[in-house]
Amino acid sequence: MNPDPDYSAAYVVLSDGECEGHGFAFTIGRGNDIQTAAIRALEPYVLGRDVSDLGALYKEMVYDSQLRWLGPEKGVMHMAISAVVNALWDLKAKRAGKPLWRLLAEMSPEEIVGLVDFRYIGDELTPDEALEILRRAEPGRAERIEKLLETGYPAYTTSPGWLGYDDEKLRRLCKEALDDGFKQIKLKVGADLEDDVRRMRIAREVCGEGFPIAIDANQRWDVGAAIHWIKALSPYSPHWVEEPTSPDDVLGHATIARAIAPIPVATGEHVQNRVIFKQLLQKRALSYLQLDAARVAGVNENIAILLLAAKFGVPVCPHAGGVGLCELVQHLSMFDYVSVTGTMENRVIEYVDHLHEHFTDPVVVENGVYRAPLAPGFSAEMRPESIAAHVFPDGPVWRDS
Amino acid sequence: MNPDPDYSAAYVVLSDGECEGHGFAFTIGRGNDIQTAAIRALEPYVLGRDVSDLGALYKEMVYDSQLRWLGPEKGVMHMAISAVVNALWDLKAKRAGKPLWRLLAEMSPEEIVGLVDFRYIGDELTPDEALEILRRAEPGRAERIEKLLETGYPAYTTSPGWLGYDDEKLRRLCKEALDDGFKQIKLKVGADLEDDVRRMRIAREVCGEGFPIAIDANQRWDVGAAIHWIKALSPYSPHWVEEPTSPDDVLGHATIARAIAPIPVATGEHVQNRVIFKQLLQKRALSYLQLDAARVAGVNENIAILLLAAKFGVPVCPHAGGVGLCELVQHLSMFDYVSVTGTMENRVIEYVDHLHEHFTDPVVVENGVYRAPLAPGFSAEMRPESIAAHVFPDGPVWRDS
Repeated sequence: MNPDPDYSAAYVVLSDGECEGHGFAFTIGRGNDIQTAAIRALEPYVLGRDVSDLGALYKEMVYDSQLRWLGPEKGVMHMAISAVVNALWDLKAKRAGKPLWRLLAEMSPEEIVGLVDFRYIGDELTPDEALEILRRAEPGRAERIEKLLETGYPAYTTSPGWLGYDDEKLRRLCKEALDDGFKQIKLKVGADLEDDVRRMRIAREVCGEGFPIAIDANQRWDVGAAIHWIKALSPYSPHWVEEPTSPDDVLGHATIARAIAPIPVATGEHVQNRVIFKQLLQKRALSYLQLDAARVAGVNENIAILLLAAKFGVPVCPHAGGVGLCELVQHLSMFDYVSVTGTMENRVIEYVDHLHEHFTDPVVVENGVYRAPLAPGFSAEMRPESIAAHVFPDGPVWRDS
Repeated sequence: MNPDPDYSAAYVVLSDGECEGHGFAFTIGRGNDIQTAAIRALEPYVLGRDVSDLGALYKEMVYDSQLRWLGPEKGVMHMAISAVVNALWDLKAKRAGKPLWRLLAEMSPEEIVGLVDFRYIGDELTPDEALEILRRAEPGRAERIEKLLETGYPAYTTSPGWLGYDDEKLRRLCKEALDDGFKQIKLKVGADLEDDVRRMRIAREVCGEGFPIAIDANQRWDVGAAIHWIKALSPYSPHWVEEPTSPDDVLGHATIARAIAPIPVATGEHVQNRVIFKQLLQKRALSYLQLDAARVAGVNENIAILLLAAKFGVPVCPHAGGVGLCELVQHLSMFDYVSVTGTMENRVIEYVDHLHEHFTDPVVVENGVYRAPLAPGFSAEMRPESIAAHVFPDGPVWRDS
């Protein structure tokens, strides 16, 4: 579905005169002008405004009635809100001198609940239920922060599995992933069934029985085709099947999940907001929830999604890759571990070894785990020289191309 | 939910050197810059291109992999595709010298099926099933065209029911609607329950038992609140309850529909695409489907939605109002009558008496019916003097305000 990605971002810098907050809407090429126009439309909410209450400010942006018409709460406008909300969190964490995951992990349950918009999810999660989930996790928080600093958070890698690699390269990359200590790998599938069966067999041979090998279809199938294709791959025991069909099709995911059980369904990188996630959970249509740091409305809506997943007992294994998504999403999983679910069991964060060199506080993935970031902020800031080189249309990368 | 609308549009004109096609993305105020940027991103699909095959061209735009990342198929990017697709249809109908409804109504079932993207709806509607629906309606088409030209298509009016009118005005406007021959009226609800009960009682008194009075909540409620509120209004027999909650919440709509039965649920003006409509139909979550001419990807996706509704036997009663939505949507309902369902029973098109003076071929609503438009095109073209006066930021309406 994404044959020609050209990883890009509409990039936001907010300054309070002392500190800067950075955020971005990740795109795969054209569309940055559109995202930039959407971000500009949000200027009145931050320029010269008191930005200390990020629960209230987030809701103000989401409920701007004129801009809401363009969604509501989906697509371009929602991604723009994400960029601004995430930049405000980067700023707040820098001012607090803490990495975002720790800033969140040290907030009280009441403060966390105040960040969430319960509108349209109240039938499954009330503020009281959210408080109860957070209070239940409160006792062990200090120990878990220590454990996280010590052991890190498990990662999996998509590097071996891109379509178009020959069998020899697939074999070599699977071996390297094992050697590097990753806890899981993932193969892209859906272009050609015969190829997929062969590639899956090779990966299974290299990784051995029991090693988690996920597959990812990037929305290629209709419901019937998904079931047919996955059944053909089932002898190789996929750990999960990711994005089997349209991210909007809750009932389609549920039908697929029932038909391919016990093979689990995973989805989320294109799920537009908490309302769709609520329904995927209600229908038991997913077994792994793959939130994205920059598609829903930023940190605040992702907290709602973490709480919904916790209520349903579904593990969150975030989507990453792209530009800076690994950097952002690690903070959300670590907050989930410390303050929401209290466990890393059956949970992994995606890792793609790509473009980290452009960030001032890049992820550190060692021996198959994300090390907990220590620098203040949301790890969202790109290096000034990277920004200068890649800015469109005047940066040298564009000028000279 | 829409306290301060300022009706606007991002407006598209395409020219083939002889004819012009007009289209627009309707907004309620800010956001036009964003829509304009999104429309500009589609220029490569039309500038200097052969635009004769609108089935193929529509799919090309929807499947642009980079722009698709900004949705997929929802929000700003999808509304931009709608504006361009609708402008292409306006152009095509003008070149054919026919009003759009008639151009479509005279196409063969095979040609109509070629306009539809069946991706992600194949589990409920295959091309063969669509063909069967269209072929079943084929025999009576000529007679229905005659009937439509003679009798028009039933309309209903929202004019009496805006929030903020005093009781006297409500009473007077209800009486006027009856005198004008409208077949149904609609009241906005959801701000204050006591007020709504009083207003509904007044409307029922004026209109009498059995006259259809719909209510419209504009997404104000969560599931529980919707059920509570509607039950309180049920003694006054609402004809339908429109947008009781988030347009994304298929399961929420289904829960509400079951709880308030036999009062029917209606929704659609904010439903993002055919995939959500498919699910609303699968769950019997709506009893009236209110497609919008300019939110999903234009004429082509609306044909898919008409076919889905026909398969499930759910009447389509389109959303209108805004800027030019009445002008567009009448063509779709008339095509539905002639070529898809063959009936106008239990069907009405919304009518709001607002801003028609800006269009070169404005709707004609007389004695409670839309007269079938006769001028070539999609009735989408604004008068040059209206465009000149309202163009942002240099038109006199803006300059002098």
